[in-house]
Amino acid sequence: MSKLTQIQTYLNQEGASLAVISDPVTVNYLTGFVCDPHERQMFLFVYADREPVLFVPALELAKATSLLNFPVFGYVDSENPWEKIKSGLPSTTGKKLFAEFDNLNVTKFQGLQTVFEGHFENLTPFIQRMRLIKYQDEIDKMLIAGQYADKAVQIGIDNISLTRTETDILAKIEFGMKEQGINKMSFETMVLTGDNAANPHGEPGVNRIENNALLLFDLGVMYEGYASDMTRTVAVGQPDQFKQDIYNLCLEAQLTAQDFVKPGVSASEVDHAARQVIEKAGYGEYFNHRLGHGIGMDVHEYPSIMEGNDLVIEEGMCFSIEPGIYIPGKVGVRIEDCGYVTKDGFNAFTQTPKELRFFEG
Amino acid sequence: MSKLTQIQTYLNQEGASLAVISDPVTVNYLTGFVCDPHERQMFLFVYADREPVLFVPALELAKATSLLNFPVFGYVDSENPWEKIKSGLPSTTGKKLFAEFDNLNVTKFQGLQTVFEGHFENLTPFIQRMRLIKYQDEIDKMLIAGQYADKAVQIGIDNISLTRTETDILAKIEFGMKEQGINKMSFETMVLTGDNAANPHGEPGVNRIENNALLLFDLGVMYEGYASDMTRTVAVGQPDQFKQDIYNLCLEAQLTAQDFVKPGVSASEVDHAARQVIEKAGYGEYFNHRLGHGIGMDVHEYPSIMEGNDLVIEEGMCFSIEPGIYIPGKVGVRIEDCGYVTKDGFNAFTQTPKELRFFEG
Repeated sequence: MSKLTQIQTYLNQEGASLAVISDPVTVNYLTGFVCDPHERQMFLFVYADREPVLFVPALELAKATSLLNFPVFGYVDSENPWEKIKSGLPSTTGKKLFAEFDNLNVTKFQGLQTVFEGHFENLTPFIQRMRLIKYQDEIDKMLIAGQYADKAVQIGIDNISLTRTETDILAKIEFGMKEQGINKMSFETMVLTGDNAANPHGEPGVNRIENNALLLFDLGVMYEGYASDMTRTVAVGQPDQFKQDIYNLCLEAQLTAQDFVKPGVSASEVDHAARQVIEKAGYGEYFNHRLGHGIGMDVHEYPSIMEGNDLVIEEGMCFSIEPGIYIPGKVGVRIEDCGYVTKDGFNAFTQTPKELRFFEG
Repeated sequence: MSKLTQIQTYLNQEGASLAVISDPVTVNYLTGFVCDPHERQMFLFVYADREPVLFVPALELAKATSLLNFPVFGYVDSENPWEKIKSGLPSTTGKKLFAEFDNLNVTKFQGLQTVFEGHFENLTPFIQRMRLIKYQDEIDKMLIAGQYADKAVQIGIDNISLTRTETDILAKIEFGMKEQGINKMSFETMVLTGDNAANPHGEPGVNRIENNALLLFDLGVMYEGYASDMTRTVAVGQPDQFKQDIYNLCLEAQLTAQDFVKPGVSASEVDHAARQVIEKAGYGEYFNHRLGHGIGMDVHEYPSIMEGNDLVIEEGMCFSIEPGIYIPGKVGVRIEDCGYVTKDGFNAFTQTPKELRFFEG
């Protein structure tokens, strides 16, 4: 069943007449049409009982019309998009409607409410659930996105030098990726040395790479609409034994959770598998974020792998496993692989070695 | 009057008790605290009659607490943020509240409505109006952001070669910016050759730079929280006379609008000043977007410089003037400067020459 048909089936089950898709990533997921309308309006209207209609800024009309086999209409900047939608869209009789509440701001929602009389419910949980279980072609793309992340970390490692800054190395990584045809990183690349790595949301700066310290890379790329995301922490020179011990504790937590994953366990149990390793060693307070997040067309998507999430893990789910230990002023470590679930367990998208490796600065 | 005090004054004028700030850029604008909470929750609660309170993910608590001189509280991933807000926030007696409807999704809005009993109105127009008129320190940062954009275009020009692809040159530009300490471009850099430039939302690819064609650069950087944005189109080899004529027509439109800007004219009149030049020459249909957009902490912000916008231009407003002419399969040109309005007119942030320049590929 096509993805659009799945939505139509859901609408019919729910007795709803229409779903309004407002997240550009969902539009891409459902139709293959890639467009970021920025502050302009783009909506895909999926009807229960007729073909869908796409509404786009005029700039995007030609591209959308040539790609899609259903009606597309548009508006120019000087037109009122809500009036244009109201006059251009087939009318609906049903009063129950769906919209993506997690990707629709209140102003746009109020605009839609001037167009449609019915009562809106939240489509986001259904879309999250659709996107949660990846098809093979999606996993294939994510494996390639992962290979590029491995290459990116290798570029970082190859450029370790005490004369370079965090941003120097970051620039080399992103340049290398662009040379290989990657237009877009999946988020802002992180290269963090020493104390800066001890901040879980540290920002790369013009400080030089520290010797006898840990160096953290957190990065990913976009490949054909799919994200990769990985973190590696390596040693520069000879960090002291405490730093090495914290690294190995984090690694034990990461591997424990990764081995624990299989269909049937819950997201919170996966989080607990990693967390208990760090808690037992007495460092629980320094692992102050969830274990992981879903990944796919968005680098962070549903679900959260965390305490309190009873979601049962199934084949085809893709998420990160990324414990971190951040002791301010002392040491920061995070180790992350994203992967997909098979009947046998967790297969990582990224293959860069995880045992602590030592490099000369 | 401090920015937070301006909001308090507005709340008191409106008989409202509280404003909920949800846009991370607005939080930065008002407080200097920089944080992207991604899918987590961050809200700044500005009260009419007491000090503000910031709510952040636990990861950001230390940074926020050290920076701000008012209360900050947070939540960890496994906690329900709405319950945490409800129990941690001073109660309000007023029933009229404000929220940033343009930067608040429906799900978060519903979450806020479980916390507060009152009726919400839209704060976005007030915030837009605040951010519309830039302070001198903001203009100073935007001037520097513009200087970096000039340098970036120069790197692009220095790397023009028929053996290079659009993405090769793009990579050189972004690498050069990172070498100069710029961590973040303000949007995805565009380098578009020939037919690709004739698509107003073309995407850079692995196609080589065309000879005897136009080459378009559209780029900007973020500098201390402020964006630059500029477009230059240059000739590679000897484009035919028609392409040169279209270029010069676009330039005439750009300069006409830029000269037309002064306090007291309207946004739609500025748009018209450029558009009539292109329409009179018979190419109006190929200039199919607004003339410009506001710029500041967001690369695209209020207002739109377009037909139908009666906003009166004032000193301190900052926006782009960027006419484009896109004739599919034939030629694409866009020329853009952003600038600020003084009592004498429009001062551009970017200084790269605009007369058609010819480079060997």
